[in-house]
Amino acid sequence: MKKIAVMTSGGDAPGMNAAIRAVVRTAIYNNVQVAGIRRGYQGMIEGDIFNMDTTSVSNIIQRGGTILKTARSKEFMTPEGRKKAFEQLKKHEVDGLVLIGGDGTFKGAHAFFGEHSLPAVGIPGTIDNDIAGTDYSLGFDTAVNTAVDAIDKIRDTAEAHDRMFIVEVMGRDAGYIALNSGIACGAEDILVPEKDTDFKSILKRISNDKRRKKLVNIIVVAEGDDFGGAEAVKAKILEHFPRIDVRATILGHIQRGGSPSYFDRVQASRMGYAAVNTLLKGTSQVMIGLENQQIICTPFENAIKEHAPLDMDMLEMAKILSS
Amino acid sequence: MKKIAVMTSGGDAPGMNAAIRAVVRTAIYNNVQVAGIRRGYQGMIEGDIFNMDTTSVSNIIQRGGTILKTARSKEFMTPEGRKKAFEQLKKHEVDGLVLIGGDGTFKGAHAFFGEHSLPAVGIPGTIDNDIAGTDYSLGFDTAVNTAVDAIDKIRDTAEAHDRMFIVEVMGRDAGYIALNSGIACGAEDILVPEKDTDFKSILKRISNDKRRKKLVNIIVVAEGDDFGGAEAVKAKILEHFPRIDVRATILGHIQRGGSPSYFDRVQASRMGYAAVNTLLKGTSQVMIGLENQQIICTPFENAIKEHAPLDMDMLEMAKILSS
Amino acid sequence: MKKIAVMTSGGDAPGMNAAIRAVVRTAIYNNVQVAGIRRGYQGMIEGDIFNMDTTSVSNIIQRGGTILKTARSKEFMTPEGRKKAFEQLKKHEVDGLVLIGGDGTFKGAHAFFGEHSLPAVGIPGTIDNDIAGTDYSLGFDTAVNTAVDAIDKIRDTAEAHDRMFIVEVMGRDAGYIALNSGIACGAEDILVPEKDTDFKSILKRISNDKRRKKLVNIIVVAEGDDFGGAEAVKAKILEHFPRIDVRATILGHIQRGGSPSYFDRVQASRMGYAAVNTLLKGTSQVMIGLENQQIICTPFENAIKEHAPLDMDMLEMAKILSS
Amino acid sequence: MKKIAVMTSGGDAPGMNAAIRAVVRTAIYNNVQVAGIRRGYQGMIEGDIFNMDTTSVSNIIQRGGTILKTARSKEFMTPEGRKKAFEQLKKHEVDGLVLIGGDGTFKGAHAFFGEHSLPAVGIPGTIDNDIAGTDYSLGFDTAVNTAVDAIDKIRDTAEAHDRMFIVEVMGRDAGYIALNSGIACGAEDILVPEKDTDFKSILKRISNDKRRKKLVNIIVVAEGDDFGGAEAVKAKILEHFPRIDVRATILGHIQRGGSPSYFDRVQASRMGYAAVNTLLKGTSQVMIGLENQQIICTPFENAIKEHAPLDMDMLEMAKILSS
Repeated sequence: MKKIAVMTSGGDAPGMNAAIRAVVRTAIYNNVQVAGIRRGYQGMIEGDIFNMDTTSVSNIIQRGGTILKTARSKEFMTPEGRKKAFEQLKKHEVDGLVLIGGDGTFKGAHAFFGEHSLPAVGIPGTIDNDIAGTDYSLGFDTAVNTAVDAIDKIRDTAEAHDRMFIVEVMGRDAGYIALNSGIACGAEDILVPEKDTDFKSILKRISNDKRRKKLVNIIVVAEGDDFGGAEAVKAKILEHFPRIDVRATILGHIQRGGSPSYFDRVQASRMGYAAVNTLLKGTSQVMIGLENQQIICTPFENAIKEHAPLDMDMLEMAKILSS
Repeated sequence: MKKIAVMTSGGDAPGMNAAIRAVVRTAIYNNVQVAGIRRGYQGMIEGDIFNMDTTSVSNIIQRGGTILKTARSKEFMTPEGRKKAFEQLKKHEVDGLVLIGGDGTFKGAHAFFGEHSLPAVGIPGTIDNDIAGTDYSLGFDTAVNTAVDAIDKIRDTAEAHDRMFIVEVMGRDAGYIALNSGIACGAEDILVPEKDTDFKSILKRISNDKRRKKLVNIIVVAEGDDFGGAEAVKAKILEHFPRIDVRATILGHIQRGGSPSYFDRVQASRMGYAAVNTLLKGTSQVMIGLENQQIICTPFENAIKEHAPLDMDMLEMAKILSS
Repeated sequence: MKKIAVMTSGGDAPGMNAAIRAVVRTAIYNNVQVAGIRRGYQGMIEGDIFNMDTTSVSNIIQRGGTILKTARSKEFMTPEGRKKAFEQLKKHEVDGLVLIGGDGTFKGAHAFFGEHSLPAVGIPGTIDNDIAGTDYSLGFDTAVNTAVDAIDKIRDTAEAHDRMFIVEVMGRDAGYIALNSGIACGAEDILVPEKDTDFKSILKRISNDKRRKKLVNIIVVAEGDDFGGAEAVKAKILEHFPRIDVRATILGHIQRGGSPSYFDRVQASRMGYAAVNTLLKGTSQVMIGLENQQIICTPFENAIKEHAPLDMDMLEMAKILSS
Repeated sequence: MKKIAVMTSGGDAPGMNAAIRAVVRTAIYNNVQVAGIRRGYQGMIEGDIFNMDTTSVSNIIQRGGTILKTARSKEFMTPEGRKKAFEQLKKHEVDGLVLIGGDGTFKGAHAFFGEHSLPAVGIPGTIDNDIAGTDYSLGFDTAVNTAVDAIDKIRDTAEAHDRMFIVEVMGRDAGYIALNSGIACGAEDILVPEKDTDFKSILKRISNDKRRKKLVNIIVVAEGDDFGGAEAVKAKILEHFPRIDVRATILGHIQRGGSPSYFDRVQASRMGYAAVNTLLKGTSQVMIGLENQQIICTPFENAIKEHAPLDMDMLEMAKILSS
């Protein structure tokens, strides 16, 4: 292998830059050239490809976002688009790929490598932590810490005013961010997509709290919850308790950015390092994953399956600990 | 003066706890007893009043929110409510008051002291920084830093995706938070209530940026802007540029909470200290303020007027520096 | 079981308060009374024991330190001291114990329960992460993030001045904090107690860097490294390169405090919850641990053994990634 | 004026990058070319000068350190060195200078412009805030917040262990950082260079605290204090109270780095903007300053005088509020 290319795709996640750095430095250490592809598959199609050296990745390990930028590409969903992309890679003499992204990235890879032959290794990067084949995907740790930091601030106001806040966090159709940020902030209720929302028990708890003059302060809602997000929950509560002081707040995109936590930087470094070494050893069409703290490999076709079940006992625990 | 009472009122602001601490400790140092009133004027009416000593305020200087809680009180807007409040204060033998809050607090005080006689001193506490008679009100410095921290994170995603974000910040009808957070984050446009929004120039800039393949990344909008907030701005931009990737995000209540900055803690300490010393010197019915870094006093009736003009040159500067 | 007592012992660690909260709330949920013991074994001997209810632990999940305080106790190392402690527990009708602390805590417990009979469960809490029988001890995640945040700041100056910094981090005789913060900050060298320091290779690297006009910027040293800490490393470097601009900085106690990360809060909650449930199920004289993300139990006598080996491959990786 | 050059000199300070950005963008907006000089006066002598455009300063407003690097230069202290520097500037056709740094920077400028003629404007950048002719120098706000954040963490441990910490902060021979961080953290004593340390009163207070079973927790010491820093204070306390658990900790270089606060970014933007506009208006050999929030100009020879007196009342207040 003489030259590999690296790209990021899908939503950006903290730790992507640390992974890029690891890929570039590990490749160069092994006398392999590295090219960067800008804006994911779309940049691949357009040939937005440039050579990188060790200094290209100086001073980026601590930065959020991705220096390679990211984008969605409708064109790549067509065989013609993928053909163009492959031709660009050939033109740039790329004979190995490292793909950093979420399940959409690996779906794309699966289609691509069904048609064209090129060794590739993936690295899971999405704050939603919803990729099969790995216990962890880059960005989750940082995203939960960011959500917790925000909810801690909101709680100051909630307590000062005896006000209830419905806080919506990210995670698409997965409840990991909601569950973990909810427990960490002592939320009185946590609504996740993995469990049908039992609104009666929420209303009952509010009713009990009112009786003993304490108000439920914080309810954390996953954006993918079946009940419909923070505004819907707020509306429903007001329907039953019209005089409660309740606010909905959507944390939004602050959860994607920011300097990665040590954990995201270290795992990104390990995964980037492993990705290149895996390619060099001749293994490909796999995603690097983390299982019980160890680096493992999972074939691309398994990396696109659904996410692991949520630990429902932790939801139960959260209620007991916030009572 | 044998016993003073202290309360917080209006929206909570970082630094309120530091001010409470300074009031309590300064009073006790001067052999004056201190009572805390919970939940502002409403608690005053209800007699939610308790004795405080130096340990009541231990370990609170670094906390957001207010340990005395805060609330709005419709009852206090009536003469009957204010009479009840006064009787409660007499019952608790309070012969001096320290009021921490925003212009609503001082409006209430003005009505109260028009009917009842009791020495009182105010401390400006609101993140909006929109109180006349002082250069500074507690919480502003922390709130702007919180907004900046959030927008920095959003910019990571904005740059990774070449996406435009319209970020709405707090400040009610004042543009201070928007102006300062916007400059600090290098926002390409800043919309404030103090200036009619010139949407044509915004569109023109986007158009120019598109031509040279750069996109305006961040527009900061004050919640009180005449154009109607982040969602309205986003809708209008999409009307003209339907294919732009633009998102609206409302930072919301995270801006109110959090551990106060050194500046808020120091000014809160100075103001609380000055408030008690002012009362003890026999001056009252004034708000403590900060003018050119010096502590000053302003009569309550002047503390309720409109806010100081925004520095329009800084808006101009912001555009030049983000170009 | 009618009444359990909870205490913290040894060095404080972020997450201890979250664990206390979980213990108290879980016990009360199960109709078991809870007493708090202040200042660890010393407070146990002195009978510094008080009743706790659900509000005793309100609003502490996000705080560093420990509301139960902690202390060392020479008296507890004697049979007489332990006898006094046991009598105090009997006097307060305590029939179960939850001990939160490091290996010293469990050594003490081992001696105690060899002489006196009382069901007890331990929770590992030490930033050093050096306790056998668990993958994780509370405080480590927060401590590494604190160290990383500090080293990121130092790197700003290191790069501005082309200056080398030798940064000493905590961890006693374990190199976990050094290894993880070093990788996360892109340190050019990491010195840990688990590996003999090869000073020649450090000197060689500096020499190589000088030749290509780049200087090693950051070397992270564990406080327990065989070479003797940051000052010793600095002195030795200056011996060989007298004209290098090199500074030593000891991060010190900032690494122990601060608001716990989400991970520490969640694991503390799980461990505190599990500790009480374990006691109630009739299991005791064990430490709660985390193994592959699952809660496990380890007998006290195994919890005091030496720490797990460091992953030496990660040291190798760190060098490659920082080159 | 066709081309200006900008450089940073002396210790780095948060906000320097924001000032560089403002200088570059304002110049280009006014159709003036900009060159960057690396490593201060030493780089000027060596001709380490390069052209900058608006993208050279993209995405740096939020970064600590200085992209232009900084250095000390012995050679510039000689007339020969300054002559070389001037020749380099002429060679690069620089006809205006913006100098960002501390009093050493302006002393150098004073000597330089005594011998060579070139319009120049200065911007005060040093965390010590000890420059005459301005109320504020860039970096101070961020540095105090960093110190406060660190001391907050240390207090967690101080309270958990009833341990006393002597914390040494930066500031050279000025006590501003010590005074403000000390008040903000509720330090029980604050030792500053501007006041002879009255050790008897410190001992007396410790003695009083011991009597009522409370220990002084935090003493903040300026590095320039006459008593000799944290270790000296600790030694002296142990001499009188050998059984007290007291630790010394030196915050060190973390205080210089980190992402600048909003205040530093805004003032840096204003100062950089004003510096170029001042040059273009034909005024030079002045330092931009801030006086009562307004931008002012001070001749270089006045910018090098001693620092403003410390507000001694605030030291008195600090003691009362921490009692």
